[in-house]
Amino acid sequence: MRIAITGTGSYIPETVVENQDFEKQEFLNSDGSIFKQDNAVIIEKFKAITGIGERRYVAESLNASDIAFLAAEKAISDSGIDKEDLDYIILAHNFGDVAHGQYQGDTLPSLATRVKHHLRIKNPKCVAYDLIFGCPGWIEGVIQANAFIKSGIAKKCLVIGAETLSRIVDPYDRDSMIYSDGAGATVIEASENLGQILSHETATYAHDEAYFLFFGKSYKSPSKDNTKYIKMYGRKIYEFAVTCVPQAMANCLKNSGVEISEVRKIFIHQANEKMDEAIVKRFYGLYDMEVPSGIMPMNIEKLGNSSVATIPTLLDMVRNGKLENQSIRKGDVIIFASVGAGMNINAIVYRV
Amino acid sequence: MRIAITGTGSYIPETVVENQDFEKQEFLNSDGSIFKQDNAVIIEKFKAITGIGERRYVAESLNASDIAFLAAEKAISDSGIDKEDLDYIILAHNFGDVAHGQYQGDTLPSLATRVKHHLRIKNPKCVAYDLIFGCPGWIEGVIQANAFIKSGIAKKCLVIGAETLSRIVDPYDRDSMIYSDGAGATVIEASENLGQILSHETATYAHDEAYFLFFGKSYKSPSKDNTKYIKMYGRKIYEFAVTCVPQAMANCLKNSGVEISEVRKIFIHQANEKMDEAIVKRFYGLYDMEVPSGIMPMNIEKLGNSSVATIPTLLDMVRNGKLENQSIRKGDVIIFASVGAGMNINAIVYRV
Repeated sequence: MRIAITGTGSYIPETVVENQDFEKQEFLNSDGSIFKQDNAVIIEKFKAITGIGERRYVAESLNASDIAFLAAEKAISDSGIDKEDLDYIILAHNFGDVAHGQYQGDTLPSLATRVKHHLRIKNPKCVAYDLIFGCPGWIEGVIQANAFIKSGIAKKCLVIGAETLSRIVDPYDRDSMIYSDGAGATVIEASENLGQILSHETATYAHDEAYFLFFGKSYKSPSKDNTKYIKMYGRKIYEFAVTCVPQAMANCLKNSGVEISEVRKIFIHQANEKMDEAIVKRFYGLYDMEVPSGIMPMNIEKLGNSSVATIPTLLDMVRNGKLENQSIRKGDVIIFASVGAGMNINAIVYRV
Repeated sequence: MRIAITGTGSYIPETVVENQDFEKQEFLNSDGSIFKQDNAVIIEKFKAITGIGERRYVAESLNASDIAFLAAEKAISDSGIDKEDLDYIILAHNFGDVAHGQYQGDTLPSLATRVKHHLRIKNPKCVAYDLIFGCPGWIEGVIQANAFIKSGIAKKCLVIGAETLSRIVDPYDRDSMIYSDGAGATVIEASENLGQILSHETATYAHDEAYFLFFGKSYKSPSKDNTKYIKMYGRKIYEFAVTCVPQAMANCLKNSGVEISEVRKIFIHQANEKMDEAIVKRFYGLYDMEVPSGIMPMNIEKLGNSSVATIPTLLDMVRNGKLENQSIRKGDVIIFASVGAGMNINAIVYRV
């Protein structure tokens, strides 16, 4: 049985926040002390490492489930399926619907149920659930859909990644500049000739790495307020990712039976440009190869890191010719790879 | 391939909160107005409908992931497997780790990752994720584990339901008396002779029913504070459940190929005693039968409604002879059935 991605859609929020918009922000160290550097220097370094020049924030009226719905509508339309034929709606996120100006995430009901409600799907056999798996949530959702189809309990699945990280950033933390909002959706179904998941690989490193990404207090007067924000040990994550992700990708490629020379594109989680480049360099290093030119489509410069949404958004852009000098054609072998909170790593080798 | 529940474990919190402990609580209507009835009358009616006499709350130092771990340890030990052989840790919950005195749920990292961390499992191939599916989350986790094993990507899965509802109740809402804390865990694996999942059934009703359970403001001065609590339209849920759950159970039984006369026990989500009784009565009504005596083990009187934890806890108690006059023996056919936020319904027909 061949299982394919037969439709994609994404929602890119309208509000553009540029790096210079952070110039007057008060950035603090984790102990609350003030940085000695000017913000201009901080922002310049930030841009050099992450590659991020802008990010997108959702309008005040929108939550994660709303943008998930907007991406889902497009993916369903793109696939040409009847929405009532969906067996699953799998929505990967990590913080629920966090309304503007609030910090409490809302997951009652699940965001997948909200999307199904907005889509006006009547069929009760369409099962809607949320998946929490860090940034690799969308890839893991595709792997779960693949398993459901293979095991015979589903034929068509909608897999969405949606996140509004702008709602849970600590503005006093430099890392807040990394995060962005977005949603990407895909339809996964059995198909003889529209594509094929060749192999997949997943790992959870929780023994020593579980809290590399965590929920922590603001760097501003941290003792006074219990509100928590997304926090990370960036250096530890970098070292972990460049060590473990290339090997996971290589395992996945080996299991696919495809030669490295056949790989046409790598769609990697848009976490940090330098880290992504280092991962792909090490991956090709495992085959004593240089990184082929143009192998790695990137949109992080304009869209930042929107967690679970980066890969399906990137795929949607490339499929629709919206990323300069990047395209995929029928028969191309591509790799999806991600790393994030958990710490989770996963990869899929896919023939378009 | 036969897929069985080979181990169970549960954690029942130590703090007992009796109905009389609510006698001095200020209960309000949803518009903030005061009830005309005495609390003694409210509590008496509450007991008569829900069957709840006591509920359990976790100690201040514990969160949902901690009690999930405590239940998981027991289930692993009970199954006799090596924890390093687990392919999946699937943790069903709905609100994350909500620390004592706080209202912001923490899902970074996932609670499944935290459990894996506490279990000190090193094997990175053990994939840990969280599932949000309302109260039916544990059953749905078992259905997902079943699919993973059938599709060939897993052999042994740990499926946990854990919730600390005491942390997200509005004390001014009478319905707060329903909710309880708890955790139940199970090991699911292929086995020739230790049991067999015969069939399963799931539905999500989101067209009109999505917000029957929802996150809403406190009934006390609702305009002043944006903090949200678990809220429900009890009457709507009751009518929905007694209509849809019996039919889902009957569909599941039909697909199992087992006759109604062979069913020995029904493990139903401990939501509300009168509702559970009405569901089982209607289920047998579909076969023109009276409800057999002792068919439905119940622990709601002492343990309240702990959401995803009720069924695995009940199963663990009955397997271990901890519920008076209730037992299951090898070869017995039992039904698991649940209903909750989403609105989600599911059922499993299982041969012990």
